[in-house]
Amino acid sequence: MTVPKIPVGVLGGSGYTGLELLRVLRGHDGVTVRFATSDSAAGRATPVPGLAFVPVAEAPLDQVEVVFLCLPHGEAASWVDRQRGQGPRVVDLTADHRPGSGKENGAVYGFPEVRPAEVAKARLVANPGCYPTGVILSLLPLDQAGLIDRARPIMVSAASGVTGAGRAPKRELLFGEVFGDYRPYGLGNEHRHLKEMRATLPELQLLFVPHLLPVARGILETIALPVKAGVDAAHIKALWRKTYGEGGAVRVTDEAPALADVANTDLLTMSAFDNAKLEAPTVTVIAALDNLGKGAAGQAVQNMNLMLGFDPERGIRC
Amino acid sequence: MTVPKIPVGVLGGSGYTGLELLRVLRGHDGVTVRFATSDSAAGRATPVPGLAFVPVAEAPLDQVEVVFLCLPHGEAASWVDRQRGQGPRVVDLTADHRPGSGKENGAVYGFPEVRPAEVAKARLVANPGCYPTGVILSLLPLDQAGLIDRARPIMVSAASGVTGAGRAPKRELLFGEVFGDYRPYGLGNEHRHLKEMRATLPELQLLFVPHLLPVARGILETIALPVKAGVDAAHIKALWRKTYGEGGAVRVTDEAPALADVANTDLLTMSAFDNAKLEAPTVTVIAALDNLGKGAAGQAVQNMNLMLGFDPERGIRC
Amino acid sequence: MTVPKIPVGVLGGSGYTGLELLRVLRGHDGVTVRFATSDSAAGRATPVPGLAFVPVAEAPLDQVEVVFLCLPHGEAASWVDRQRGQGPRVVDLTADHRPGSGKENGAVYGFPEVRPAEVAKARLVANPGCYPTGVILSLLPLDQAGLIDRARPIMVSAASGVTGAGRAPKRELLFGEVFGDYRPYGLGNEHRHLKEMRATLPELQLLFVPHLLPVARGILETIALPVKAGVDAAHIKALWRKTYGEGGAVRVTDEAPALADVANTDLLTMSAFDNAKLEAPTVTVIAALDNLGKGAAGQAVQNMNLMLGFDPERGIRC
Amino acid sequence: MTVPKIPVGVLGGSGYTGLELLRVLRGHDGVTVRFATSDSAAGRATPVPGLAFVPVAEAPLDQVEVVFLCLPHGEAASWVDRQRGQGPRVVDLTADHRPGSGKENGAVYGFPEVRPAEVAKARLVANPGCYPTGVILSLLPLDQAGLIDRARPIMVSAASGVTGAGRAPKRELLFGEVFGDYRPYGLGNEHRHLKEMRATLPELQLLFVPHLLPVARGILETIALPVKAGVDAAHIKALWRKTYGEGGAVRVTDEAPALADVANTDLLTMSAFDNAKLEAPTVTVIAALDNLGKGAAGQAVQNMNLMLGFDPERGIRC
Repeated sequence: MTVPKIPVGVLGGSGYTGLELLRVLRGHDGVTVRFATSDSAAGRATPVPGLAFVPVAEAPLDQVEVVFLCLPHGEAASWVDRQRGQGPRVVDLTADHRPGSGKENGAVYGFPEVRPAEVAKARLVANPGCYPTGVILSLLPLDQAGLIDRARPIMVSAASGVTGAGRAPKRELLFGEVFGDYRPYGLGNEHRHLKEMRATLPELQLLFVPHLLPVARGILETIALPVKAGVDAAHIKALWRKTYGEGGAVRVTDEAPALADVANTDLLTMSAFDNAKLEAPTVTVIAALDNLGKGAAGQAVQNMNLMLGFDPERGIRC
Repeated sequence: MTVPKIPVGVLGGSGYTGLELLRVLRGHDGVTVRFATSDSAAGRATPVPGLAFVPVAEAPLDQVEVVFLCLPHGEAASWVDRQRGQGPRVVDLTADHRPGSGKENGAVYGFPEVRPAEVAKARLVANPGCYPTGVILSLLPLDQAGLIDRARPIMVSAASGVTGAGRAPKRELLFGEVFGDYRPYGLGNEHRHLKEMRATLPELQLLFVPHLLPVARGILETIALPVKAGVDAAHIKALWRKTYGEGGAVRVTDEAPALADVANTDLLTMSAFDNAKLEAPTVTVIAALDNLGKGAAGQAVQNMNLMLGFDPERGIRC
Repeated sequence: MTVPKIPVGVLGGSGYTGLELLRVLRGHDGVTVRFATSDSAAGRATPVPGLAFVPVAEAPLDQVEVVFLCLPHGEAASWVDRQRGQGPRVVDLTADHRPGSGKENGAVYGFPEVRPAEVAKARLVANPGCYPTGVILSLLPLDQAGLIDRARPIMVSAASGVTGAGRAPKRELLFGEVFGDYRPYGLGNEHRHLKEMRATLPELQLLFVPHLLPVARGILETIALPVKAGVDAAHIKALWRKTYGEGGAVRVTDEAPALADVANTDLLTMSAFDNAKLEAPTVTVIAALDNLGKGAAGQAVQNMNLMLGFDPERGIRC
Repeated sequence: MTVPKIPVGVLGGSGYTGLELLRVLRGHDGVTVRFATSDSAAGRATPVPGLAFVPVAEAPLDQVEVVFLCLPHGEAASWVDRQRGQGPRVVDLTADHRPGSGKENGAVYGFPEVRPAEVAKARLVANPGCYPTGVILSLLPLDQAGLIDRARPIMVSAASGVTGAGRAPKRELLFGEVFGDYRPYGLGNEHRHLKEMRATLPELQLLFVPHLLPVARGILETIALPVKAGVDAAHIKALWRKTYGEGGAVRVTDEAPALADVANTDLLTMSAFDNAKLEAPTVTVIAALDNLGKGAAGQAVQNMNLMLGFDPERGIRC
């Protein structure tokens, strides 16, 4: 007896996040993609064999159980407002309903490893941002266990591939500008993702400096973490291993995480390293993920899996 | 009347540093390159028109006034020892005689902007390392002016292009490994360049995390700098501007430094930014340079200029 | 009832081809990887969860039905000779037994789309080279149908990513050398892959110029094809579509093939274009594939599928 | 006595070509840049120290002897028409007045190595296109000497870095699209540069297939050249050497030209190679140049040098 596949849909499927989500869903044996919308690419092929993009107005919402929102930031909130709680359950990949947005709107903040039960019964899931995913999943359990020295700032030096900035044409994202370059941006500690991190880790003093990396995909976060006396890298890795277990999407490693090991996967890898010759105890934490994988599409599919009663890692690349 | 050009030579000219040095010297109107050595490339053309590499044993040392050492680390010290203070004046681009090496041997540590008079009369100049150049030139004047809070660690998150690792074939430096990757290395706060930084900035607690960047050349250093109460980015930039002046190889900018702006130049650009929402005052400092330019060949030529009585920026790309 | 998975093994698994093969086999639901060898990486993890590399001397050959040879060129032939026809069936990914090698040794030249029946019963399959795969699969059916003007040379301008040159450290493959570069190699029409192409297409005059492309993976071949009077791109695409069908690893497209569309897949895409203002009728053929996918590991798994009675596309990325 | 520098200006200085031109002019000791225009970047710094962009309407045309046009294609012709032959002499870097444009308008087609005397006295010079520069300078002397077999098509497989496509934001030029990709474009033998090549080499049957290369700058052209019986690579190189001499911007090499050797220079390098096992004699010609150097700014400055009575290589990077 064959179990029927559950129908899902994607609103806004022709950006980098939407395309990646369609590629992941294509390989998922528990769901079938009923539609994917794109006004600009309507009529063209999607990554799902046999499926073409349709205009957003023609999406058959009543035929799906879960819909993913990969719309431009701002449009997802409007769409959810217009639905008035009706229609399919929603995984929103935009920033619109995330913590700190001021429009959380009852959305469950969707970290499958942190709050699986809440995600499982949510009608609206706010899928976490790419940068916050690495910072929060590495620091949250450490802070909850009281290992972090909250009195000192935490420097997060982060680097992201260019797809993290979206697919709309802008001069500063042209190949001719980015090739051979590497530069910080969002200086002043006011990057828009800080709201999400601060709302989730309100007691920590985060200093977040993102950089644009000349690769298509991947995020690496290097964190100078002030810890309490007696805490070292071994403690930290042990706590993470207890929190995240083995074989899931979050992996604790002894060697240093690297972009090449997580690109094109839905993994988040993290490790910790002691530092010589510092008076105030400080551990270096490294976290790596694919901004389109665990930082977007992979995590969204994990959330969908929980909502549908599937194993959270079903169909993802880990 | 034509002023005769001063003859100089290069020992070890076929690595990335040596080739870059030859390219800079080729464009310098006050010197002429009498020889460049390479045992492996002997007989082949150098970047200097009409000049072929010769074996190191055939270098006519008695014909030059200044010789540059671009030998493998370790071989420079042996060579200098064998010379016993005889022969041409030396600019050593290796790490062999730098501060903290334990074999300083009377060498003058060659920062043209910091100690021009000492460099001018030196017989042996230790040309600074690429990473230390950005860290020291940005932090030294701030520390001397008492702006830095020495009680807190200083996080230096640094990223370097691949030529910084040399030209000897190693698997981890293959294009197939580095393309699309980005990774930290030298974790544990024990990178070999730390000796040089600590010897020069002994009161500061440096936490240094270097990363390998998928570009050929350039270094960007992102520094979370703990400052004393009341110190802000404006103070810092004003002090730098007073220290380094205008039009030289060290430039203070208001916008963020970027690799693309310094690649293929001999510039070091630096800027500082205040940070919102941190209790302990912390300024973000960004410094950018080309590891082969101001981080090696460009700085070596500045040192040579001082030794020969030339303007320090003569013939360099700034 | 669960069908037991068929055990297979990989000799020489730590190069680019071997690693890619292990990644494809890991996702194949009909086989299980019993061993992967690497003398240099013995004891380290393979891409297959729970499997570590073993020294080649410890490979349990008697436990597998198919063994893949990803050894250095030359060593595969020695290994096969020593086996004297005993042991598991073999898919050889090296050049050792390919047409034109002079040591074909009864091997079946393994193009799954061309000779599936022969592959299915072969004891030794010579997996085709990466460059020949695109040239032969595009030109062979056209020549068999008499569409090509054999009197004129066929210019094949080919470009390959760097993993095509293997993982052994060589200076010319360093990131610092290849970044920003693009260059031809093997000039003189004597590239080693020409033997294989000429043995398979003996009536055609091939002029083959390969180039090294600054990407990790992928091959694109641009062919100026002299055709007989009256033959045009539409004829060619129709014949290909008839030959290769739909939904397989070989795809005929109307838009131009591109590296980005085949990288990390086991697809070969091909298209043809008419040319204005030429007296002698000449069609431009474009073929694209991943040198590690359809050009190596993907095609090897297709061959294994045929040998084991599976669907030829089972477990591959197409 | 100091010779006064000759004032020049640049219309449209903030695209890739204009910026490169300003960088070359900055290093030229015979001229001074009086103005550079850009409506979008007005007020911002140019690469020339102390010079800011001004709106095009404010360009002090009466203060310069030569003006360079780096405007969008189409606008240069309008501007020249409005000038009615008055004002400074013009080097037009756009396609507007090139051979085959239909609006040649009396412009001298500006190849400094081919027609220096005509350029020297021209009021309007049409600076050649980047792709045509390599094709024409390599093939023109061979055709004039009767070495080419005009009855057979000449396949030109060309690859260009992304700056060749301009700096206006387009999706297909985003870093996220081009990274890791390589693809042909302009298929059908109708690329807009073919007009210029056909007008200059009217007896040759050119088949031109350009590709977009994932690098910022540089062009490499691989040409399958049908030659008359008895002509070989040695003949061809000898003829080129006789035509172009030594030490100029056009260099004949024995090893294969490569992008890395010409990027950031104003050189064009070319070489020729015999081919084994072809019945119809065919030589492979390789030409390499920087599309922004000899393919645009460098050649424009050579033309300016001739117009001002300077040495043609003065101030260029060769």
